[in-house]
Amino acid sequence: MENANEEMAHRVLTVKLPKPSLKDNTGDVERLKNGLSKMVHGESIHMDLSLVKEIPTLLREWDYHVTCVLLKEGTRWTIARVADGKVDRPVIGLAVDLGTTRVVVRLIDLRTKEALHESAFDNPQIRIGADILARIHHGSTKAGLDHLNRLIIDGFNGEIKKGCDQCGISPKEIYLMSVAGNTAMTHLFLGIDPRFIIREPYIPAVNRPGVIKARSLEIDIHPNANLFVFPNIGSYFGGDLIAGILYSGIHREEDTAILVDVGTNAEVVLGNNAWLIACAGAAGPALEGGITKMGMMAGPGVIDKVQIDPKTRQFEIHTIEDKPPLGICGSGLIDLVAQLFLVGFVDVRGKFAPDICGEKLIEQNGIKALIIVAESDSGTGKEIVLSQVDLDLFVSSKAAMYTILNTITGSVGAGFHDLKTFFVAGTFGSYIDPVSAITIGMLPDIPLEKYHVLGNSSLGGASLLLTHPELLPEVDQIRNSITYLELNVNQDFMIRFSGAKFFPNTDASLFPSVKVPYNLTPIAGSPAGSSGLFRKDGSN
Amino acid sequence: MENANEEMAHRVLTVKLPKPSLKDNTGDVERLKNGLSKMVHGESIHMDLSLVKEIPTLLREWDYHVTCVLLKEGTRWTIARVADGKVDRPVIGLAVDLGTTRVVVRLIDLRTKEALHESAFDNPQIRIGADILARIHHGSTKAGLDHLNRLIIDGFNGEIKKGCDQCGISPKEIYLMSVAGNTAMTHLFLGIDPRFIIREPYIPAVNRPGVIKARSLEIDIHPNANLFVFPNIGSYFGGDLIAGILYSGIHREEDTAILVDVGTNAEVVLGNNAWLIACAGAAGPALEGGITKMGMMAGPGVIDKVQIDPKTRQFEIHTIEDKPPLGICGSGLIDLVAQLFLVGFVDVRGKFAPDICGEKLIEQNGIKALIIVAESDSGTGKEIVLSQVDLDLFVSSKAAMYTILNTITGSVGAGFHDLKTFFVAGTFGSYIDPVSAITIGMLPDIPLEKYHVLGNSSLGGASLLLTHPELLPEVDQIRNSITYLELNVNQDFMIRFSGAKFFPNTDASLFPSVKVPYNLTPIAGSPAGSSGLFRKDGSN
Repeated sequence: MENANEEMAHRVLTVKLPKPSLKDNTGDVERLKNGLSKMVHGESIHMDLSLVKEIPTLLREWDYHVTCVLLKEGTRWTIARVADGKVDRPVIGLAVDLGTTRVVVRLIDLRTKEALHESAFDNPQIRIGADILARIHHGSTKAGLDHLNRLIIDGFNGEIKKGCDQCGISPKEIYLMSVAGNTAMTHLFLGIDPRFIIREPYIPAVNRPGVIKARSLEIDIHPNANLFVFPNIGSYFGGDLIAGILYSGIHREEDTAILVDVGTNAEVVLGNNAWLIACAGAAGPALEGGITKMGMMAGPGVIDKVQIDPKTRQFEIHTIEDKPPLGICGSGLIDLVAQLFLVGFVDVRGKFAPDICGEKLIEQNGIKALIIVAESDSGTGKEIVLSQVDLDLFVSSKAAMYTILNTITGSVGAGFHDLKTFFVAGTFGSYIDPVSAITIGMLPDIPLEKYHVLGNSSLGGASLLLTHPELLPEVDQIRNSITYLELNVNQDFMIRFSGAKFFPNTDASLFPSVKVPYNLTPIAGSPAGSSGLFRKDGSN
Repeated sequence: MENANEEMAHRVLTVKLPKPSLKDNTGDVERLKNGLSKMVHGESIHMDLSLVKEIPTLLREWDYHVTCVLLKEGTRWTIARVADGKVDRPVIGLAVDLGTTRVVVRLIDLRTKEALHESAFDNPQIRIGADILARIHHGSTKAGLDHLNRLIIDGFNGEIKKGCDQCGISPKEIYLMSVAGNTAMTHLFLGIDPRFIIREPYIPAVNRPGVIKARSLEIDIHPNANLFVFPNIGSYFGGDLIAGILYSGIHREEDTAILVDVGTNAEVVLGNNAWLIACAGAAGPALEGGITKMGMMAGPGVIDKVQIDPKTRQFEIHTIEDKPPLGICGSGLIDLVAQLFLVGFVDVRGKFAPDICGEKLIEQNGIKALIIVAESDSGTGKEIVLSQVDLDLFVSSKAAMYTILNTITGSVGAGFHDLKTFFVAGTFGSYIDPVSAITIGMLPDIPLEKYHVLGNSSLGGASLLLTHPELLPEVDQIRNSITYLELNVNQDFMIRFSGAKFFPNTDASLFPSVKVPYNLTPIAGSPAGSSGLFRKDGSN
């Protein structure tokens, strides 16, 4: 729990000390500090009592030739470890993306700055509740909080042990750890009462947890290890996003860029080296594949790419590992809907077109549904379908996403074409085909080369901080320069949202690259003041 | 374990924070830090995770009106406690003189800088061994060290509890503690392996333990309390002496002064604001009353003042609390011997004069002894005597003391009359009558107004640091400016020592104020080159 002047720097220093004599009776601790002092340019050096107790034995054991790991702590260096100077041991960092659902950890060799190992595990708190609210309620008692905290700490310890075993290193060789997570997950990880996060006026216990000692959390890495927790701006803008911004670098560029992290929420940051503006909205679930009946997380047998031949209307379906199809993931769904629209199965309003769908359009419990995979080809033994309900949800999600992007860009008087770069982050974001996303009007129709896929930007930011601790002050700069834009769901927003529910949009001029396949018929109830509908490639 | 920039400062700050609202969703921790920031002139403020966890509840419990205790930690402030802003609670410091034999603790109200309570207890490590060597041997194994450490820590916890109970305060209201002790005692207190202190080349594990957290030693005061341990210069010059120098202030004056701490060793520091020179020698035991058969620590019934009528040769004996005499303490012994010398019971060579002693001089086991208290007057039921062996030991001690003083002063080319002030420290030192000490030639014959009794200067220095933490840098300055003078027991030293074994000295010109009662007869074997003997107030 600290301030901006604290750092995540480390040094590995090997030193041969002058041996004690009657002429030089300097104490062991001071002998070591004096030996290291020049190497850290005279900066102050500290040693915890626990290590002081071992020093007389350690120095003599290694004949005053030792290698020390030093960690920055406030404005001083703390000696974390003293070991044999003749042996080269690894110095490891651990970067963490602390997700509500999934936790990703990456081991990094701090000497080479290379990733050694990466793995993920389900957040064990899921057994208390899949969503954040349930966990916060559970964490509102001391016992519940301890339980949630124990679950995630144990989860880490198990995963760290496994990863280290695979790399042939010891968890005690991890000296730095950085954790990027949303505000609630961060509180539960630190064992801090989260209850006021969800009560008006929605106050986190702490915005900037900063650098703490790993031992205070019972994380089984080096007990003196420094652990940095990315700061939050409030209940709804967490350290995972700050880490993502750090990773994207948009806060460093003169040109304005945008960063979209597509998870359960769509989190959007727009800005440059002078300002950052952020907002978030519930746009994700349907996109992430969490809502449609056929939706699922990426995995073997999951449909991730779809092509439909515009002439034969034959479906070409690709599954992960080419296993028989079981369902569809978010990026596959975007592909599917884009293709359905392009060949006419779905019209501009997002409704199935019976003429085109033909026999593939069936009815289930009174709801129309399109057969995507026939029973005979399915890996589930049942046909895989996309229902009109699924499709409507999906349309709402993609419209919300576009409207959020449109609103935040408009709020600063900019258009999408003013953006230098469009970063798409999030595990799901990594797999989105921008062409499909533009086709359905979810992402803006800008040149494809402006799209940059970041992957797991939280993990990226957490890793970057370990290998480049000099960036730590930027984390606070980012935090302090963000203006949070409350999305006012007012008439203007609703108008844009309604327009964005069309494929690609009621204002097709926004999507010049999308070749709308059908004549559009005017839509009843089209809102006044919208830019209107026009027919793109046909008679009016 | 730290460096010069750490401090023992504290602040008690009461603040009314703006309450959280939808317009101001700053986290609880940051809300508090922001509120305090101006009061500490923007210096960085830190909060440990353990307190962060309590903050949401604490702030709401007291409606955002709180009183905080802040402690300096390195270059930042750490919030140690957050409590009800409407209640004024004590903020206590604990000063400690950690003696090998006796431990003295003083509770100080840091708001008023006044001492609340003082008490002492026997160092519980005595049950392992009365002297330092035995304890160091015992502490050379992990189990032995833990045992010794546990003994002294438990001793503190018991004494602190008792003292606090008497003052109506809680030990948890102690936020600062400073400990002055010799090098070995300090190591055992910190639980640090002391074994290399007594092995050539005599290396302490640590010279500057600095500020550590009370909780790391399991001292039952506020867990976040800062505990400062005075630094040592080596195995033989400990933090107790550094604290004593701080208390005397000799390091601040332009004029040269001397400080003598009379304990088991005579420790002497000479210097001014430009330099300090120190030495130590075994001069104390006999003086401290530890060696003569009749010797004992001060207490009821102990002889502390002696007058002998020069005409009637009647003994006027004063005991503490006027109880029947049981024995004599160090200062009483100095008085006694000075009086015996002045009225002729003892001659200039320190031998009983049979003519004068008359019937009072008896023989016990073939050794001459002077009856000081007759059986009938004694509190022990037996006569109290001073034997020639006791007297010889005493003479050696007083001679060693004078020779050390003489040597250290001479080493810088100064004489006693160049000294502005002569500080006498140590519990024993407090009771010495300078006139008596001069009479026997133990202390130099300088104007009485130059003598300043300091009392327990270790405790004084430890207390001073608590009430004046801005003095902390001076502690290191003192430590760094001391030159340690090895007392070479060479021919020159032995000549001086031999001369100093006389009453007051073979060179009586050094003691013009002492009226030597008898003609001196030349002493056989008087060293060549000594300033010679002459008869002061009589024929030669």
